[in-house]
Amino acid sequence: MHIHIHNEPRGVDQPIMAEAWAAAGITGHHVTFGASAEDFLEHAATVEVLIAPPWEIKRMDLAAAPALKLVQSTSAGVDSLHPFDGIPAGVHLLNNRGAHAAKAGEYGLMAILMLINLIPVFVTDQKGERWARRTCGLARDHRLTIVGLGSLGGAIAAQAKRLGMTITGIRHSGGAHPDCDRTLPPSALDEVLPATNILVLACPLTAATENLLSSARIGRLPVGAGVINIGRGRLVDQDALFDALEAGRLGGAVLDVFRQEPIPAGDRAWRVPHLIITPHMSADNPATYNADTLAIFARNLAAYQAGETPPTLVDRAKGY
Amino acid sequence: MHIHIHNEPRGVDQPIMAEAWAAAGITGHHVTFGASAEDFLEHAATVEVLIAPPWEIKRMDLAAAPALKLVQSTSAGVDSLHPFDGIPAGVHLLNNRGAHAAKAGEYGLMAILMLINLIPVFVTDQKGERWARRTCGLARDHRLTIVGLGSLGGAIAAQAKRLGMTITGIRHSGGAHPDCDRTLPPSALDEVLPATNILVLACPLTAATENLLSSARIGRLPVGAGVINIGRGRLVDQDALFDALEAGRLGGAVLDVFRQEPIPAGDRAWRVPHLIITPHMSADNPATYNADTLAIFARNLAAYQAGETPPTLVDRAKGY
Repeated sequence: MHIHIHNEPRGVDQPIMAEAWAAAGITGHHVTFGASAEDFLEHAATVEVLIAPPWEIKRMDLAAAPALKLVQSTSAGVDSLHPFDGIPAGVHLLNNRGAHAAKAGEYGLMAILMLINLIPVFVTDQKGERWARRTCGLARDHRLTIVGLGSLGGAIAAQAKRLGMTITGIRHSGGAHPDCDRTLPPSALDEVLPATNILVLACPLTAATENLLSSARIGRLPVGAGVINIGRGRLVDQDALFDALEAGRLGGAVLDVFRQEPIPAGDRAWRVPHLIITPHMSADNPATYNADTLAIFARNLAAYQAGETPPTLVDRAKGY
Repeated sequence: MHIHIHNEPRGVDQPIMAEAWAAAGITGHHVTFGASAEDFLEHAATVEVLIAPPWEIKRMDLAAAPALKLVQSTSAGVDSLHPFDGIPAGVHLLNNRGAHAAKAGEYGLMAILMLINLIPVFVTDQKGERWARRTCGLARDHRLTIVGLGSLGGAIAAQAKRLGMTITGIRHSGGAHPDCDRTLPPSALDEVLPATNILVLACPLTAATENLLSSARIGRLPVGAGVINIGRGRLVDQDALFDALEAGRLGGAVLDVFRQEPIPAGDRAWRVPHLIITPHMSADNPATYNADTLAIFARNLAAYQAGETPPTLVDRAKGY
């Protein structure tokens, strides 16, 4: 097959070049590399597989590639491609869900312990040159709610369970999860929030999850609760969350994703108290990212060629 | 026996009062409570056991208590009592080592993950309203060195081992530890530092450990290494550590203890980049602290009454 690998030109992530491709051991194909929409058009007549970041896929004219069969996103979140009108009917869109699990699990564990240990409060105190001793309990004394039990949320549940936390998972299916004490469908979220000490958002952004953490739901969290977001910024009414932090109603937040990225200098976010900002890095391990993505692609390709459903096929109706 | 419980009057910690004592189930004794050196003197004629924080023990005239046999510190660190000249010969000084293990293990795990995930860097970026994306690897890719394998260091080793870290323990005896890949005596520290990604100080402060992390040893750590201190501030040449952070030679530090506590407003510490300050809270769980301390005391008392060595007897020669 003709496989075209497109690396975004800004250098946000390490590009997939010849060496990484060779290391993946996917042989017997004609492989080309590019970094622009024009590069893609040059190969479009024969390309059957495109591997690229979703925000770059969006910029390409996929209709110009009549033989295109598979589009492998090098991200798990494909919300930037919604409503998928740029992906021709009959082309399989694949994401790389699973590549982020180990890293997200450790980041989530860290963020949970940071909220329990009042790090957002102490960092704000530090900025104000203020020593104010406070103590706190153990993880096992806290109730954790994780929205989304895919590879990110599942990895966080596994880490949190080892610390003895009481874990509620919120997932579309409502089906059981080995590391959660209970799992509930999204409709149960309102009932769960008042007894949640720490809320983790680890779900995809879709029409159904946009503004999931609304002002009303922030109001249902108990005073002093903590919020972690490693999904997408638009899962949260960001201004309502910042209001609750400024008012001291919430105890703290650790956020890796924001409605606008990068956060511009001068933005309100930089000055909100009891907030820890990380620059969208929670789930990306540079040492393994490309190798993991290509391993996922290899499984997708093998399944496709065998006439089976590729394991990380995106469900266009669900949006992820 | 006549047991006198002295609670420090500043309210730094929760006092041990009648209810906590009753819950400990240590029966058959005459128990009095106090909060000043004068309260102690009032009971001194008959007191056989004193339970108090070490910095308060220091202020009391123990020689005025002719029947005194046991002094139970409600802290593990008794460096404030060095060189123990205020404790009459023949009186057993006991600490509460072990009461801090679970909490310190979780704090240490958090601090390790914070250094790996570049949180000290991101917090400094946040203060400067600067978004600069960086990514990082997993805990298992990092080499951890823990100085001190008592209850604090041992608990941290257990947590770090679950993440697959490569762990070197430095302990006085040099004897093996189940959660360390290797253990070495303090004399090996200089050789270990150049291959250490994260250094944890979890040892007591004694004449032998004062300034253990000297300017020269900071210089032996690799560029980008991280430092965690949950022992005592005087284990570290604090100015040299701050210099290394300001110069960007070290990647970050998470410090819970300082040479002067509270850190005064205006102190250099508040403005050092890539430094996270917590106010001496890493090892104290308020929900269990007094109960755990009294359980340790109960075992000490039983051993003493049976003519055995109390389990947490302080070795005056070693200093802890």
